[in-house]
Amino acid sequence: MNMRGDLARDLAGIVGERHVRVDDGALAAHARDATPLFEASPQAVVYPGSTAEVAEILRYATANRVPVVPRGGGSNLCAAAVPLHGGIVMVLTRLNEILEISREELLARVQPGVTTAALAAAAAEQGLLYAPDPGSHTVSTIGGNIATCAGGLRGLKYGVTRNYVLGLEAVLPTGEIIRTGGRLWKDVAGYDLTRLLTGSEGTLAVITEATVALLPKPKESGTGVAYFASLADASRAVTAVIAAGIVPATLEFLDHKCIAAVEEFARLGLRLDAGALLLFGDDGEADAVAANLDRIKGICADIGALEVTLAENVARADALLAARRCSLPALSRLGPLTVLEDVTVPRHRLAEMVDRIDEIADRYELRIATFGHAGDGNLHPTCVLDPHDHAAIERCHKAFAEIFSAAIALDGTITGEHGVGAAKLPYLEERLGADQVALLGRIKRAFDPAGILNPGKLGS
Amino acid sequence: MNMRGDLARDLAGIVGERHVRVDDGALAAHARDATPLFEASPQAVVYPGSTAEVAEILRYATANRVPVVPRGGGSNLCAAAVPLHGGIVMVLTRLNEILEISREELLARVQPGVTTAALAAAAAEQGLLYAPDPGSHTVSTIGGNIATCAGGLRGLKYGVTRNYVLGLEAVLPTGEIIRTGGRLWKDVAGYDLTRLLTGSEGTLAVITEATVALLPKPKESGTGVAYFASLADASRAVTAVIAAGIVPATLEFLDHKCIAAVEEFARLGLRLDAGALLLFGDDGEADAVAANLDRIKGICADIGALEVTLAENVARADALLAARRCSLPALSRLGPLTVLEDVTVPRHRLAEMVDRIDEIADRYELRIATFGHAGDGNLHPTCVLDPHDHAAIERCHKAFAEIFSAAIALDGTITGEHGVGAAKLPYLEERLGADQVALLGRIKRAFDPAGILNPGKLGS
Repeated sequence: MNMRGDLARDLAGIVGERHVRVDDGALAAHARDATPLFEASPQAVVYPGSTAEVAEILRYATANRVPVVPRGGGSNLCAAAVPLHGGIVMVLTRLNEILEISREELLARVQPGVTTAALAAAAAEQGLLYAPDPGSHTVSTIGGNIATCAGGLRGLKYGVTRNYVLGLEAVLPTGEIIRTGGRLWKDVAGYDLTRLLTGSEGTLAVITEATVALLPKPKESGTGVAYFASLADASRAVTAVIAAGIVPATLEFLDHKCIAAVEEFARLGLRLDAGALLLFGDDGEADAVAANLDRIKGICADIGALEVTLAENVARADALLAARRCSLPALSRLGPLTVLEDVTVPRHRLAEMVDRIDEIADRYELRIATFGHAGDGNLHPTCVLDPHDHAAIERCHKAFAEIFSAAIALDGTITGEHGVGAAKLPYLEERLGADQVALLGRIKRAFDPAGILNPGKLGS
Repeated sequence: MNMRGDLARDLAGIVGERHVRVDDGALAAHARDATPLFEASPQAVVYPGSTAEVAEILRYATANRVPVVPRGGGSNLCAAAVPLHGGIVMVLTRLNEILEISREELLARVQPGVTTAALAAAAAEQGLLYAPDPGSHTVSTIGGNIATCAGGLRGLKYGVTRNYVLGLEAVLPTGEIIRTGGRLWKDVAGYDLTRLLTGSEGTLAVITEATVALLPKPKESGTGVAYFASLADASRAVTAVIAAGIVPATLEFLDHKCIAAVEEFARLGLRLDAGALLLFGDDGEADAVAANLDRIKGICADIGALEVTLAENVARADALLAARRCSLPALSRLGPLTVLEDVTVPRHRLAEMVDRIDEIADRYELRIATFGHAGDGNLHPTCVLDPHDHAAIERCHKAFAEIFSAAIALDGTITGEHGVGAAKLPYLEERLGADQVALLGRIKRAFDPAGILNPGKLGS
């Protein structure tokens, strides 16, 4: 391992002095991502400007056994971008060009540092839709989205990032540049490395270019809101909507604790007497959207909703969606430390899962509110804490361990869209079994024999 | 390596005598799949009846270094199920139960030996759609579909098998049973082994159970046919349809040689003066289907179609789809040996690719007709030969090698949906590069250290 000065000099030899930082400010800023409670300082932060520079840095790191942690917008919520073992944080934000948008092929070719929102905006200008829309879309990058297989609010109808990645250019930890997939949906030449790299959390290779699929932009969209006496009723409505053959773009929920926090924060006029709020939306041809929203409204009413309202215009629809998007900031105001989790269960078991979460929170004397993607069964239980209350933090860890076990017991999983990172690694074996975890390690070593790429995470 | 008798006795000890065959008839029947020109005899054919038996056979094979080739319906077209190195052919057709179909979760859980058509029919009975529909759907199995990431006629709108696999139970060559994914769309716990096994062609693990996503069954469907003076015109129409923001379920084409062969075979009343036939279809809400078909009809007319007709009823639509589905049998009648290939190019380069194919066919004095999935750019150039004309077969190999190179040069690939198997392995490095092929080998060894699972194929 090099000392800090040697490392800086060696990296400057590759990318130029301007693009290496070893000052305390830079190191501190890159010791964390958006995950609370995880922090570890790198020895250097490097900003490569080309695929060739990425390759040279990785060859250097493998030769010298220096850890490298690739990073996009730094918005990860499971400490996947925290340099646990020190070394180099490689920030890919200089590679931020949209190289191509093709209407006739319905695809975009982009560098990894492009933000999700920038790609979505560029596609929209051409009448196209980049469907994945993770909550962090204004800061998160496409490279990071792919590395974590990001989800979002439109997953029910449109799927997740995995469903939109056609091809990748990526650099192996040993420096070889590979191109997986391409511009085609139908291509079965070789193992599906495109999908294997998607969601590999920067542990197998560094993504330096991506070709992603776009869709024709839906002509119309619409949104509605339903209030229910209980989350069990809201969950029954979700199940009934799907069983009726409707797969809308969006089916989001807030529990009563989230409703209160959001209303306190944003004053949107939400009903505070409800046990749960269900936000539903669809897009497509105007007639179909109107018909689907009407049917969902009817189903909610049949289940016994306290109130169902369709947004009369775009401004009102945006306000409702904002209610969902501001759940996390609203909860964050309730305490200086906010631990946001990310379990998924089959959608008809949503209420059962939230009951379990509430019971566990009560038992550990914690404030845990839950919101999430009802249509996908993807829940974000969020615990609000005082960072100086170490006993409460300890209880929080124990509570979430129980929540993960409860999700697994309900045929669910420990992470729906945030990833494993360092935060979930201790729970991975409970989800996958020892044999599969051992296999992940063998796959990791097939890519990264020296173990330099994002060590201490997936595959370790 | 055991002798034939020892092997039979050992396998009978695992699955019972009734489920092992070593007679010449069985060995000859399992020396081939649906690929012409590839043949190699196994030493035994075994029919396991449970996941535990699959695991025991694989542990035995690894311990004794006996090759094992997993097999479903045997309809593979790239020799992926031919036991090149002898050993055991493991037929999974006894594992043929549909374990569960859930309307509320929109999924099915099935054993690998269920045929695609049986699953589709069972889903349809509950008002649900299993979207992938490979041409071989009446004989091919879900296990085989997943192992090859099968495509089909609905790929443009619905994607391919990969887009519908939620979870797998699979047995590693060393005998460990793993469960990947599960019942959820949103699940990022670990590397995406579900998608890595999908399309791995029985070289990494044996699939013993699959959970696949279903969709609400579309209410209506419609079909139309357009004739063009040239394939270039048909290709322009396809590009214009997509650029207009329409993504229909089906956009299939036949070149003039296929039209003639199909008409000769099936007497459907097809126009023989056309350079190309384009079959288009969509499904969904009745209004949307009608609107889309009308717009496609208009676009075809604008491009200068000789004739565009919408099928006035279901019977006529089925007849048109039959024209596409019987392309291969119709061409097969023209000569005793039919070599069906499977390249993909970006859809707007379809005509360019067919021009290249025709030029190559003329130069090698071969009869090659082409049909395929115009919407996906997935072409099936098909060469009709006399099996005793060894010189022609030699020219056919050379012609296809040039066709693969031409597809790659047009940003395409050497196989869109049939797979690599033994037939395409010599061309894989040209498509992926040496570094990526080496990486596939390392991944293969992470799963199969003894190299017993389907040797001589992907990863070898």
